[in-house]
Amino acid sequence: MEATTFVLFGATGDLAKRKIYPALYNLFVDQKLPQSFSVIGLGRRELSDQTFQANVEQSLHMFSRREANDPDVMKKFLRAFRYSVLDVGRKEDYQKLLKLIEQQEEEQRMEPNRMFYLSVGPEFFEPITANIHESGLGSAYGWKRLVIEKPFGHDLQSARDLNHNLGKVFTEDEIFRVDHYLGKPMVQKLEVLQQSNPVLQALWNNRYIANVQITANEIVGVEERAGYYDHVGAVRDMFQNHMLQLLMMLTIHLPNNSTSENIRYKKKLVMESLEKLQKEDVSSYVVRGQYEAGTIQGQSVVGYTSEPNIAAASSNDTFIAAKLQIDDYFWRGVPFYIRTGKRMKDKSTRLVIEFKEPLKQPGANDDNKTPNLLVIEIGPHEGISLQLNTRDPLNKGKFKPMHIDFHENRDHVPEAYENLIRDALHGDPTFFAHWDEVELSWQWVQPILDAYKENLVPLHHYAAGSYGPAESDELLEQDGYHWWFDDKSETEIESIKGEQYAYHTNN
Amino acid sequence: MEATTFVLFGATGDLAKRKIYPALYNLFVDQKLPQSFSVIGLGRRELSDQTFQANVEQSLHMFSRREANDPDVMKKFLRAFRYSVLDVGRKEDYQKLLKLIEQQEEEQRMEPNRMFYLSVGPEFFEPITANIHESGLGSAYGWKRLVIEKPFGHDLQSARDLNHNLGKVFTEDEIFRVDHYLGKPMVQKLEVLQQSNPVLQALWNNRYIANVQITANEIVGVEERAGYYDHVGAVRDMFQNHMLQLLMMLTIHLPNNSTSENIRYKKKLVMESLEKLQKEDVSSYVVRGQYEAGTIQGQSVVGYTSEPNIAAASSNDTFIAAKLQIDDYFWRGVPFYIRTGKRMKDKSTRLVIEFKEPLKQPGANDDNKTPNLLVIEIGPHEGISLQLNTRDPLNKGKFKPMHIDFHENRDHVPEAYENLIRDALHGDPTFFAHWDEVELSWQWVQPILDAYKENLVPLHHYAAGSYGPAESDELLEQDGYHWWFDDKSETEIESIKGEQYAYHTNN
Repeated sequence: MEATTFVLFGATGDLAKRKIYPALYNLFVDQKLPQSFSVIGLGRRELSDQTFQANVEQSLHMFSRREANDPDVMKKFLRAFRYSVLDVGRKEDYQKLLKLIEQQEEEQRMEPNRMFYLSVGPEFFEPITANIHESGLGSAYGWKRLVIEKPFGHDLQSARDLNHNLGKVFTEDEIFRVDHYLGKPMVQKLEVLQQSNPVLQALWNNRYIANVQITANEIVGVEERAGYYDHVGAVRDMFQNHMLQLLMMLTIHLPNNSTSENIRYKKKLVMESLEKLQKEDVSSYVVRGQYEAGTIQGQSVVGYTSEPNIAAASSNDTFIAAKLQIDDYFWRGVPFYIRTGKRMKDKSTRLVIEFKEPLKQPGANDDNKTPNLLVIEIGPHEGISLQLNTRDPLNKGKFKPMHIDFHENRDHVPEAYENLIRDALHGDPTFFAHWDEVELSWQWVQPILDAYKENLVPLHHYAAGSYGPAESDELLEQDGYHWWFDDKSETEIESIKGEQYAYHTNN
Repeated sequence: MEATTFVLFGATGDLAKRKIYPALYNLFVDQKLPQSFSVIGLGRRELSDQTFQANVEQSLHMFSRREANDPDVMKKFLRAFRYSVLDVGRKEDYQKLLKLIEQQEEEQRMEPNRMFYLSVGPEFFEPITANIHESGLGSAYGWKRLVIEKPFGHDLQSARDLNHNLGKVFTEDEIFRVDHYLGKPMVQKLEVLQQSNPVLQALWNNRYIANVQITANEIVGVEERAGYYDHVGAVRDMFQNHMLQLLMMLTIHLPNNSTSENIRYKKKLVMESLEKLQKEDVSSYVVRGQYEAGTIQGQSVVGYTSEPNIAAASSNDTFIAAKLQIDDYFWRGVPFYIRTGKRMKDKSTRLVIEFKEPLKQPGANDDNKTPNLLVIEIGPHEGISLQLNTRDPLNKGKFKPMHIDFHENRDHVPEAYENLIRDALHGDPTFFAHWDEVELSWQWVQPILDAYKENLVPLHHYAAGSYGPAESDELLEQDGYHWWFDDKSETEIESIKGEQYAYHTNN
């Protein structure tokens, strides 16, 4: 792998501690980092290299999925870390940073390949990139890359503006937009699952699939991010990015041995085939929700508008359910139901593919036959389950569901950020959001934002600890379906949640 | 359920003790026996009812899958058992039996429904049925049924003769030919699996299936049955009945909610569509094998011709592998490889459905992609596993197989004989071999018998503890396939043999 200087803006922040350092450490232990590799942490506070290294070490003890007990390994790892103070708007700090980088590159005889990782608030994206350009940080003869966290814009226009400004400094090939859902191991497997398994390929279309359900439910409420979240809501925070990325990853049809280009091209096709909403029709396809007080896992919790730093009259959405249709050869006629919410009963990110029942006869003695389901659990546990019908030989005529479960060797499940950072170091853009995808997602979502703003969509309240407003259920019921694995069919998922999933991956 | 007198010929025999009594006991505990039910055991030895009951009880302690510890339950169960001495050829004994039955029927006010279970050698089938007729045992106004164990004939002609003679006393509807493979729970599920699961239905044909492998390997050698087995061989003992029944059960395409009649009709269609062999061509499609001395699970064992009571020059077959083709709309072009042998390395009855790889490109970087497999384990463990390809996100380009396994609640797995006896009591013929199937099986096998007799097929020797002669592997290799889960790919089945299959069903 090519020598790389990893320049981290926001080095004292939460994401760095929880995700980025542990990911780097695990990659280091797995020998997946470049031979020549240095990290330069940037932050507003003055810190010595020693203190910075000690902070990094502490975050590993707290957040690494691996024990970080070997002092020799730790020492070697931390040796790569330097710190430089930087105020985003102060041009001298960029000059100081440039000197430090050049000095290190010379000392270690490294090619000047520089990866700028922006683990900072979105208001800093544009000034930082402008200063990277102006200071000459981005002008060495090696490569440069920009890794940027969400949110990428607040709506279609602001996303276009942001992209335009980033584009003055970085080409599309140099920009790696993190959508950490794309880093999740099971999401990365989606592409392979369909493409390299004739058995699934055969079934992956509207001839066999009745509907698809994409759920990302959280138990947590708005937490510390109240001020930010209240201007964003579920539609921007989860739906426009993560949920639509899951939809794309699930529905692309790929040629064998497909390249990153194939994948992105097909994702774009899916987004272009999504049936567009008109502002006036949003309320027929989208359910907007906000949680009220309720009980979660035995604990009373307050409603959204009683959360600290949330206005009592806030009409911000903490839940969205939507029905989408892809108008192409493979998916025409298959409804995609997508929902995500805070303060839901369970924490679960899950894809459910419900298959058609072509032979089911009205009035036939097969009431307890259930549809075939392919369930892909993305988090907090990872798993694939195929639900088939079987019959107990001693109870003829009684069908019962049978689960065929996938479980994998747990030792090697990497975290999303490990996958993503490694890919960025390799310059592999497959699992980052291309601008086309981001723009098309905002385009699709924009009528929802407009309709919300103009109050064309009612805000339905739901009790914390429920599965969202009743209108979310009705969205499916009008098509003759229901959300799988909510209360009424809880037992069916038992086998998925069995002991074989005793490990936890971080959601 | 209708009152029934269960008349058991061979009541002191091995099958009765190991299978029939435990099955009756388990059915009794599960309340699956008729309210009015009596068993009359018949044997050549003089036994009192008490001794007979004590013998039955002893066999339960030895062979029942359930603990048989509750003295109250046991007492109630044994109360139904009577014994009568019977010499197959002695007409007075049948008269005595008739009196006993009539007396019981009267005492217990039972309808005279009589099930005659022939757990005796095949030489007794015809005299017993003739005497049932002559004595009037089969002439009461209730129903009568004949349950008959294998072998059903020694070749096509003898099977026809036997059926002709049974037919003088019992109609086809009254004859229940036991093929205990049809009683195995997983075999009984085959029909349901395909018929009630659109996902499998879609794949169940030559568009998606590359080949099918049916294996029934035993570790045991010829054991005590030497004299019998040496005149029968693997082709008659296993192939003509059990193996062809597995083939039928796997390949029938059924309408929804199909009846016993549908199933038998479709099974007959499969047999009629089997491409016929000519005696001269048998050697191209059939591998005939006999085991030599070898080592099984660390133990040295002698070769077949050194077994007690086997002639040193015997050319009897202890192994057969065959390639079959079904020339119908669904299966044309899909080879079916069937093998069964004694003294094989593992004990396993297993169906492997190997799917096609339509997108596999020559020279493409997917050498470690394996075909999709649906593996149905019938015994000694029960299970279904779907093998798909996945890819470790940290090792891009490297495919690895993934297993999706089925495992069921173990408490309720009934034994083959429980299923079969219960069905016979209900008069349900679904999982018994119809004469049409038996006749068509013998018809298909007859050219093999002829070719063996005329030595048109070489007898290949294989070491005990191997997977049969090399020619068995070549049978598949010439088509570009190999037997799955033999030595070379042992690891792939590991997950199937994991702890979740900690129980044993009787093979």
